[in-house]
Amino acid sequence: MTTIVDHMRIVIVGGVAGGMSAATRLRRLDESAEITVVERSGYVSFANCGLPYHVGGVIEKRSALLLQTPESLYERFRIDVRVGTEAVSIDREAKQVTVRDVETREESVLPYDKLILSPGAKPVLPPIPGIERALPLRNIEDTDAMVAAIENSKTAVVIGGGFIGLEVAENLLHLGMKVTLVEAMDQVMAPLDPEMVAPVHRRLRSGGIDLRLGSGVTAIGERDVTLADGSSVPADVVVASIGVRPEVGLAREAGLKIGERGGITVDERQLTSDPSIYAVGDAVEKSDALGESPILVPLANTANLQGRRVADDIAGRGRPARGVMGTAIVGVLGLQVAVVGMNEKRLRSAGRPYRAIHTHPGSHAGYYPGATTMALKLLVDPETDEILGAQGVGEDGVDKRIDVIATAMAGGLKASDLAELELAYAPPFGSAKDAVNMLGFVAENRATGWEKCKQWHEVAEAQNDGWTVVDVRTPREFEAGAIPGAINIPVDELRERLGELPDGPLLLHCGVGIRSHVAYSALKESGRQIANLDGGYTTWWAGTHFAS
Amino acid sequence: MTTIVDHMRIVIVGGVAGGMSAATRLRRLDESAEITVVERSGYVSFANCGLPYHVGGVIEKRSALLLQTPESLYERFRIDVRVGTEAVSIDREAKQVTVRDVETREESVLPYDKLILSPGAKPVLPPIPGIERALPLRNIEDTDAMVAAIENSKTAVVIGGGFIGLEVAENLLHLGMKVTLVEAMDQVMAPLDPEMVAPVHRRLRSGGIDLRLGSGVTAIGERDVTLADGSSVPADVVVASIGVRPEVGLAREAGLKIGERGGITVDERQLTSDPSIYAVGDAVEKSDALGESPILVPLANTANLQGRRVADDIAGRGRPARGVMGTAIVGVLGLQVAVVGMNEKRLRSAGRPYRAIHTHPGSHAGYYPGATTMALKLLVDPETDEILGAQGVGEDGVDKRIDVIATAMAGGLKASDLAELELAYAPPFGSAKDAVNMLGFVAENRATGWEKCKQWHEVAEAQNDGWTVVDVRTPREFEAGAIPGAINIPVDELRERLGELPDGPLLLHCGVGIRSHVAYSALKESGRQIANLDGGYTTWWAGTHFAS
Repeated sequence: MTTIVDHMRIVIVGGVAGGMSAATRLRRLDESAEITVVERSGYVSFANCGLPYHVGGVIEKRSALLLQTPESLYERFRIDVRVGTEAVSIDREAKQVTVRDVETREESVLPYDKLILSPGAKPVLPPIPGIERALPLRNIEDTDAMVAAIENSKTAVVIGGGFIGLEVAENLLHLGMKVTLVEAMDQVMAPLDPEMVAPVHRRLRSGGIDLRLGSGVTAIGERDVTLADGSSVPADVVVASIGVRPEVGLAREAGLKIGERGGITVDERQLTSDPSIYAVGDAVEKSDALGESPILVPLANTANLQGRRVADDIAGRGRPARGVMGTAIVGVLGLQVAVVGMNEKRLRSAGRPYRAIHTHPGSHAGYYPGATTMALKLLVDPETDEILGAQGVGEDGVDKRIDVIATAMAGGLKASDLAELELAYAPPFGSAKDAVNMLGFVAENRATGWEKCKQWHEVAEAQNDGWTVVDVRTPREFEAGAIPGAINIPVDELRERLGELPDGPLLLHCGVGIRSHVAYSALKESGRQIANLDGGYTTWWAGTHFAS
Repeated sequence: MTTIVDHMRIVIVGGVAGGMSAATRLRRLDESAEITVVERSGYVSFANCGLPYHVGGVIEKRSALLLQTPESLYERFRIDVRVGTEAVSIDREAKQVTVRDVETREESVLPYDKLILSPGAKPVLPPIPGIERALPLRNIEDTDAMVAAIENSKTAVVIGGGFIGLEVAENLLHLGMKVTLVEAMDQVMAPLDPEMVAPVHRRLRSGGIDLRLGSGVTAIGERDVTLADGSSVPADVVVASIGVRPEVGLAREAGLKIGERGGITVDERQLTSDPSIYAVGDAVEKSDALGESPILVPLANTANLQGRRVADDIAGRGRPARGVMGTAIVGVLGLQVAVVGMNEKRLRSAGRPYRAIHTHPGSHAGYYPGATTMALKLLVDPETDEILGAQGVGEDGVDKRIDVIATAMAGGLKASDLAELELAYAPPFGSAKDAVNMLGFVAENRATGWEKCKQWHEVAEAQNDGWTVVDVRTPREFEAGAIPGAINIPVDELRERLGELPDGPLLLHCGVGIRSHVAYSALKESGRQIANLDGGYTTWWAGTHFAS
């Protein structure tokens, strides 16, 4: 615990999410502190998550992005905010930061009792020919440049299909531009597993975006972009949203410890390797909530919470540590795409055991107008029933379900506990058995060993091993598309047609897993070897066709 | 733990939410059980929460309400469903139920190994003249009768402003009828505290409903209704939504224990006082999650969960008990109104200490189009920081926040823990500091004793005790409406105008509590006695004008 000294001098490098949260919180906790914020760009406390929407004209007024000014921050909080000012070096011994006016190049020295680094991250710009024409979107200046560039432009190439790439692509499309989204990997939105990203790919394409997966950009020309497959795409404007890299130059030169992921290493108090220097936001790497290796979490809400936490720590109100879960969401062309915790890819590469559950529930009661179907995935520790992560994609209500699961994780609820969560139900808002309850039902059936299942990517191997795939949907559904090699016996006829089932193990499935659960129950006491296909035909199709 | 016997005979009385959840779950757990469901009405497994919306034509097709038929339930689940059949008596010694065909009056006897009672509740119909003309809305037959009655009707009186009353009133308004909503108490929606119900009253009135509070119905005439205040209201149709009473006749006659609230007493396994008889749903009374006296929870989701729990218990898969939190929501004229846990009224009457927190956050980032303001209230145990309950009212995003808080309660998170929940953020879906985080910030400031506050209903008394109310909003806001006796010093001028503050204790407030929190911080180290008005002018106004 730190004790508060009178007129403590706090210097904060970086005046957006994390830095400004720390600054205002500190003022509220300590009226006498001298708080100085230096920000390299010309703006502080701007709405960085709103930038793509201003480019697209959804947020019409540029002024809406500017939440505060140096003047308003002084008036209300007595914070000395210096924009257009960069931190040049840190003298840790003397506890002072040298800063420089970006325009006049004039330097000055700011002594500190505590220093908070919130420098953010900078866009990754790979060394391809013409990269200097690619526009990043990190601050107000970038936004102004992009708004200017798209005026009188008709075509755009967005490089990188992460959160910001998707938001920018949607917004440029919204302006009537012809948009190509280029992603070097075989899927957009890396936090999603492939079978979950399938509906996103479909929506991008059906929405009018030319989606190029598995093909990087090799050269940027004056009015086009060349891809690795040799094709050329028209590009009046090129947007670089390939990713970000923690801005650690200042910290590294000051000898602060940098982690394996390239971020500033901090402890659970957000302290760097120097006990007088904190770091927050996109620039730091944190141990995650699930006890795995450090991760970078470039999210505004995380940065804000870290900034607040640092202010509390400085004011002697430190709290026990909490890992980072990385709850995040993006909206794209009417789809909500949200994640929390670890995905299957990461669990697999970490060699950590897990159980995956896929469901396709309605956003609200099916009999009430406007219900849409979402895809949910839950990842569970098979030993402890701990929730390891979740993913959701759908038009409505995904945000709510991911937030509920994130809260359940924070509260240490087990996957099976989701079955009995009491969630607010009326027909316009949910179902009497909510989507999250349904995940819990499945989790419990798996945890108790009552139901065995196989995953979409295990079907082909199972068939090789002698399993027969039994599709219990209606003949009409079966004819519209089925798993190769499957036989069709509708669930409602199963009890009378048991004799038609071939010998050997049976892999049951329906559209999403509900009817095959009934079929599974009906066959369970027969002594036969059976399994249910998790997520049904829908998940199997999504997984085997995710890039299409 | 019960052991599963072959061909166990299960009889279920009542074939809607709880009963049918038990029946289908039992079949999935036990293929050999003989499951019989008797249902007095002509329909099973209908969407009871959808009935008001079919009356209003929002759910157009009547068939959409009929989720299952006896035939479909037999086909898929081999459940013997007998509609139009009522249970007449239980012979507990012989373990058999006598049932009667409602039409033919023919009786038969069903032996059981386990009996599940899910008889539901019946509408309260007070003995006022003409009450026989008042229509309840509990089942499909009621719905058909109401649909027939409103044809060619122009005016309606809805008696009772609970969940169903509000939904029916909205739906009749939707049909173009002139609707009067009569509520004997001084507020609708009893689960809400008065200052929270204020926006609901305003919305009902601005939406065109003639809302009559604090005045019961004394007589129902042929085309009108007379109220206790002597006034007469036109009423081609009268709807009785005064409340429901557990349907316990069968249970009482069988000598099962009935509780103090008039419901069938059950233990944590949903067992009645007879170890072979379970009871679920609207007919039972349960101890609640917060350890207070038993409560009735007539909610479909609760009934479903209880039905599932009973099936699990019978199949030897019982789980530890969980209290009931009563999470609920209703949509009315574009407002979402949701609650979880206990309200202030109930805490006060139980003599239980609590701390109340009021906030007015945005549904999502204010700079993104379409953000609306909601009112949230959190009730906290001042000793343990345990979350005791929450209420929310607003146009959007209230469902999500109440579900998150309900999940936090289920996970045992403290109120202060809400501050660091990682919730999914992008501008269309939330704020970098989400509404729930904000509740946590306030809770923590209170829990640590950092901030003292007073509630809206304590203002007048505080003024009598010598407190000066200091309104730190702008002069323009102040002039548009202020607390009587308040003085006005805008927060951004406070530090320069300290000399203008009168002697004695100061009660600071702004619109919702954010600016006055800054003012509070600025004055905190002055040594003066200060407090913040929880929820600001908005909550004060709502509380002091809730019926208007």
